[in-house]
Amino acid sequence: MRIVRFQYGSETGYGLLEEEEIAEIGSPFVGGEEFLKTGRRFPRAGVRILAPCTPSKVLCIGLNYRGHAQELKLPLPDKPVLFMKPSTAVIGPEETIIFPPASRRVDYEAELGVVIRRPAKNVPQEKALDYVLGYTCANDVTARDLQSPTGQWTYAKGFDTFCPLGPWIETEVDDPEKLQVKGYLNGKLVQSASTAEHIFPVAELIAFISACMTLLPGDVIITGTPSGIGPLQPGDRFTVEIEAIGRLSNPCAGEG
Amino acid sequence: MRIVRFQYGSETGYGLLEEEEIAEIGSPFVGGEEFLKTGRRFPRAGVRILAPCTPSKVLCIGLNYRGHAQELKLPLPDKPVLFMKPSTAVIGPEETIIFPPASRRVDYEAELGVVIRRPAKNVPQEKALDYVLGYTCANDVTARDLQSPTGQWTYAKGFDTFCPLGPWIETEVDDPEKLQVKGYLNGKLVQSASTAEHIFPVAELIAFISACMTLLPGDVIITGTPSGIGPLQPGDRFTVEIEAIGRLSNPCAGEG
Repeated sequence: MRIVRFQYGSETGYGLLEEEEIAEIGSPFVGGEEFLKTGRRFPRAGVRILAPCTPSKVLCIGLNYRGHAQELKLPLPDKPVLFMKPSTAVIGPEETIIFPPASRRVDYEAELGVVIRRPAKNVPQEKALDYVLGYTCANDVTARDLQSPTGQWTYAKGFDTFCPLGPWIETEVDDPEKLQVKGYLNGKLVQSASTAEHIFPVAELIAFISACMTLLPGDVIITGTPSGIGPLQPGDRFTVEIEAIGRLSNPCAGEG
Repeated sequence: MRIVRFQYGSETGYGLLEEEEIAEIGSPFVGGEEFLKTGRRFPRAGVRILAPCTPSKVLCIGLNYRGHAQELKLPLPDKPVLFMKPSTAVIGPEETIIFPPASRRVDYEAELGVVIRRPAKNVPQEKALDYVLGYTCANDVTARDLQSPTGQWTYAKGFDTFCPLGPWIETEVDDPEKLQVKGYLNGKLVQSASTAEHIFPVAELIAFISACMTLLPGDVIITGTPSGIGPLQPGDRFTVEIEAIGRLSNPCAGEG
């Protein structure tokens, strides 16, 4: 199933995408396994699709594809390289990535996003996927020229609008380690790799992170980008496409 | 004034600390300059004092005291070294810092905490302090042995319970750059420095961070630790004392 979050007038809600309609449901992050329909239906074209959840935190993994580590001439990490994006960076499909004046180089990074369903602490790897609601597309937008000066990546990756997520949460993914992740810059394919290239698979990431901090319902893990990263320009459009999930597309613009 | 967040039975609220009583107020993060009293009063001894706010994000500054950079044999940074702690790390006064099994060395770091009052984006330095509700004590607890392996500090500093805050928000601080910050390990003074040693003062930090991300009401910036860092052990108690603000004290224990 595809879970969308949407805005209808001044209201926001969650729903199941059923062809050209949305069947509204209660929060997919509370209650049991079933999604409870409210009975209200909306035409998909009549609502605004939002980022598919409102994470309290977005955990990000650096250098999780062999090819990307190689293009940056960095050794493969022994443990996941973990950093965070603030919730204020999250935007939804078709929202604009805004270039900050402080940066001369803003890069795209197509990634698989993992949406956590229920509180997860000290979860063993073999049970980790039970804590996943589903998967979405993500773009780990990065002010590349601001990444190195201080060593920590929070600033370069934490600007408002630097975490596009969406367009929905796909709950039926058989194996998150067998998905083709693609990035298109203005329609041209620039990134393409299978998540089989993951150095640390999703289940291992959940076990690793939840040994440190409690993952909360709606929290998102974005799992690293394949090789082929490069710069965006104002006026560009970047699209993340993940097999069996969907396409997340965002335009880019200068600030102000 | 001293703003506390407290729990009374199953309710939580904010209040002004008035000697041995708490005068309940509405949220200090909404509305105008005045804090609106609800009329309810509670004996301080009859409530549980919580972390003074519920930040959506905790921004942290590394290496912001000359003495601490020197003890780590690191050069003084040109720009603030910014990282984040997740909201799941926040605990209040007297709550227990839990040692994770993954670490053999957990350090204390006494710090000044800055509580943001209203949304702040692209705030100029000279107006930055207008966005501050007040100041509190913080402990940037760090699994020192996990800090270096991946370069990013999120994991080492992001464990549940690794961000004690409190005991309250002091709204009347004349100059945040003239406060003595002290750390006591089991009652023995181990850290002591003036915030005059800040490489980047609070106003500059707010300008720098808000050029990147929107600071939200209740967000907290913890501004770096003085020299004198060192390890904690289960059974220890660490106390942060900041001039004109107060004392934040937390016991330590092993997990389980």
